[in-house]
Amino acid sequence: MPEYLVRIALKRPDTIDDRTWAAVLDAERAVGLDYRRRGAIQRIWRVPGTTSNVGIWSAPDVSELDQLLAGLPAFRYLTIKVEALARHYLEADQ
Amino acid sequence: MPEYLVRIALKRPDTIDDRTWAAVLDAERAVGLDYRRRGAIQRIWRVPGTTSNVGIWSAPDVSELDQLLAGLPAFRYLTIKVEALARHYLEADQ
Amino acid sequence: MPEYLVRIALKRPDTIDDRTWAAVLDAERAVGLDYRRRGAIQRIWRVPGTTSNVGIWSAPDVSELDQLLAGLPAFRYLTIKVEALARHYLEADQ
Amino acid sequence: MPEYLVRIALKRPDTIDDRTWAAVLDAERAVGLDYRRRGAIQRIWRVPGTTSNVGIWSAPDVSELDQLLAGLPAFRYLTIKVEALARHYLEADQ
Amino acid sequence: MPEYLVRIALKRPDTIDDRTWAAVLDAERAVGLDYRRRGAIQRIWRVPGTTSNVGIWSAPDVSELDQLLAGLPAFRYLTIKVEALARHYLEADQ
Amino acid sequence: MPEYLVRIALKRPDTIDDRTWAAVLDAERAVGLDYRRRGAIQRIWRVPGTTSNVGIWSAPDVSELDQLLAGLPAFRYLTIKVEALARHYLEADQ
Amino acid sequence: MPEYLVRIALKRPDTIDDRTWAAVLDAERAVGLDYRRRGAIQRIWRVPGTTSNVGIWSAPDVSELDQLLAGLPAFRYLTIKVEALARHYLEADQ
Amino acid sequence: MPEYLVRIALKRPDTIDDRTWAAVLDAERAVGLDYRRRGAIQRIWRVPGTTSNVGIWSAPDVSELDQLLAGLPAFRYLTIKVEALARHYLEADQ
Amino acid sequence: MPEYLVRIALKRPDTIDDRTWAAVLDAERAVGLDYRRRGAIQRIWRVPGTTSNVGIWSAPDVSELDQLLAGLPAFRYLTIKVEALARHYLEADQ
Amino acid sequence: MPEYLVRIALKRPDTIDDRTWAAVLDAERAVGLDYRRRGAIQRIWRVPGTTSNVGIWSAPDVSELDQLLAGLPAFRYLTIKVEALARHYLEADQ
Repeated sequence: MPEYLVRIALKRPDTIDDRTWAAVLDAERAVGLDYRRRGAIQRIWRVPGTTSNVGIWSAPDVSELDQLLAGLPAFRYLTIKVEALARHYLEADQ
Repeated sequence: MPEYLVRIALKRPDTIDDRTWAAVLDAERAVGLDYRRRGAIQRIWRVPGTTSNVGIWSAPDVSELDQLLAGLPAFRYLTIKVEALARHYLEADQ
Repeated sequence: MPEYLVRIALKRPDTIDDRTWAAVLDAERAVGLDYRRRGAIQRIWRVPGTTSNVGIWSAPDVSELDQLLAGLPAFRYLTIKVEALARHYLEADQ
Repeated sequence: MPEYLVRIALKRPDTIDDRTWAAVLDAERAVGLDYRRRGAIQRIWRVPGTTSNVGIWSAPDVSELDQLLAGLPAFRYLTIKVEALARHYLEADQ
Repeated sequence: MPEYLVRIALKRPDTIDDRTWAAVLDAERAVGLDYRRRGAIQRIWRVPGTTSNVGIWSAPDVSELDQLLAGLPAFRYLTIKVEALARHYLEADQ
Repeated sequence: MPEYLVRIALKRPDTIDDRTWAAVLDAERAVGLDYRRRGAIQRIWRVPGTTSNVGIWSAPDVSELDQLLAGLPAFRYLTIKVEALARHYLEADQ
Repeated sequence: MPEYLVRIALKRPDTIDDRTWAAVLDAERAVGLDYRRRGAIQRIWRVPGTTSNVGIWSAPDVSELDQLLAGLPAFRYLTIKVEALARHYLEADQ
Repeated sequence: MPEYLVRIALKRPDTIDDRTWAAVLDAERAVGLDYRRRGAIQRIWRVPGTTSNVGIWSAPDVSELDQLLAGLPAFRYLTIKVEALARHYLEADQ
Repeated sequence: MPEYLVRIALKRPDTIDDRTWAAVLDAERAVGLDYRRRGAIQRIWRVPGTTSNVGIWSAPDVSELDQLLAGLPAFRYLTIKVEALARHYLEADQ
Repeated sequence: MPEYLVRIALKRPDTIDDRTWAAVLDAERAVGLDYRRRGAIQRIWRVPGTTSNVGIWSAPDVSELDQLLAGLPAFRYLTIKVEALARHYLEADQ
């Protein structure tokens, strides 16, 4: 299935209170875990020193990937950059 | 083992002849295959429409990664960008 | 008729309430549908993982395109980039 | 079928002679025409005042798009940027 | 008639000899003068300290502007950026 | 008299109310009209799809231009970029 | 132990009051002092004229560095950029 | 004494009231005048159309320059960029 | 007289021989000295670690500044950026 | 003594032969070693995957640093960026 390099930056607005923010993060964690288990997220890492992450995502096509991303509970607070990836010959014989 | 997001762009100089360039690419392919088998390169993709690739590399520390990269036969023709990655909680229970 | 590549990013301010925002989006959708039917918007796509879109717009000249864009109900919340396009010889025989 | 916004810049090296360059452009034109007829290139425009173009390409997945692009006769002289596009709701009822 | 802000940077390659370059500049000057007289170039200025210029060009549409620019004798040595301009209300009563 | 390429972007803060903003815009319009009539603004265009404009301004020197710009009623909400322009030989015989 | 070049920019939000901000800075200072004594921060300098600093940090791997950085009391107000460093031959004989 | 090119941009937050802001500006003016008289500021100019300035500052070393800048009353609202300058041979015989 | 911040970067092409280059630099030095004595160059500094310089230039208007710069013997090898400067109130009483 | 963050990128031109290049690198190594021993270079690291390095340099003032850098045998092939550093309070008690 096609894979994508997805970079996600999370930004907490100054005006949101701690409780609301904690709820956003809890919901985000739950959906993230679900995506990880289903394989939509293949691998994910923290960008050190930030609240950003970078991951290898998998989806049948970019429109379905877009729906997965737009479905993230924290979507409103995220800046997301998607890079579609193509097959490399070094992967052919794996 | 620590992982790194490594982006490699290959640029052929105008002044190199076809035979020399083919030899460079052959040597690069052989070393790439070796790195891929040993797990130095965990995953690799082509950036579509380019001669660049993006990969997940693995090395005990960044100095050893640097030596792996400097050891690429095409190193002189490569522009390489390394991004050290940190553990993400979604990976913890995999 | 001249065509334009138009990239539109939508940004919701932190200070707007949900109801007002929903009304903005509803109005935007209605005008978008109208533009799409009249052919002012020839094609449109979502930029995956974002609230931006990219589209092929058509207008007799750039001043009329500017009025179409300034007439979008969400205009105040949009960052728009217009790129005027010229005829390509591969289109000549279509 | 998935669509892509593809921006292609062509750069003639200072060291290439006129005849070789004309042959490259002829071959490029022939393949471009073929891609346009087969629908790999859906639409294409010149970026005014440049030797760049921007087009809407179509391919089953990004790896096949990558092969189409790498197969362009002028590939060595091109700088290509691919942007995968997702479905927009304004297209749904067309 | 629609107007465009056009920025043109001229770059002499290291490999061109003085005589050939002078011929390119002479031809460029002649065409520039012709465009200026016909009103294709409405106004033009040097960017101080550079071999770039910025001008207000006029053409029925962007495809014709593109042909005017591609017809410049020094086109191969130029980097051109076109910005289509829209009517401003302060111009309405002039 | 020396001429300048001036690019002005207007940004409405989220916190300003409609009435105050309308008053700012009215005052801006009046001063803009005055500058246009006096020739301080020689030509002005809208950047399509934005609340920015680009204009050719004229002033005896850059300090007087700076005072004209700082005197705009909306100055606090403007981002302004000034580019001093030099005489081009194609203008000599006009 | 691996070393990292870490650039940290501190930004006080407009909406925070003086007392809360002073408390954030006090806590930050205490943790900074602790990190400096333990050697997590090897060297640190102010970027002149700013509230940013640049430092040489040390940690067994980038995930531990990430935890040190995320543990800074002012983390929410910081923009941090980490650059992993590799051994240089001029350091070998020190 | 070493000299520095210092670029200072002033940005008024949307949330500050007119009286407080006027007091900030008054205090800034007084300290600026003092620095100018003492020679810490050698020369200073406005960047036309902005609330930024660019100046030649002088200080025994960059740490003292940093303290002068951090001591500006408007420091919290300033974005400052310092560039250390080296002796040029054309200055030697002045 | 109006002043300008002028940044000049010098780049030696790979293809020029040592003797020709030395002649270019000698001529440049002579003209630089002349400009410095006449006050066209008010002050000049090296950008440390580079072959660039930054200077305060003075000329009746930007067209004359442009001619001074275009008259530099090394002009063909220079990248020049001019920034017109406006009077600052801290200079008024000097 | 003042310290500087110095980033140095080395670029081998396509036109230089192997023997000349090796001589440049040998000379560079010798001077680097000398600077390191004398403390002009306090610390130095490779930027992984590149021929760049980043170092902490020390010099009485920026003009002397500039002379050290201009004295590097490979200077003609280097792109150097100097950042002057100021004292941080966390260093005070070390």
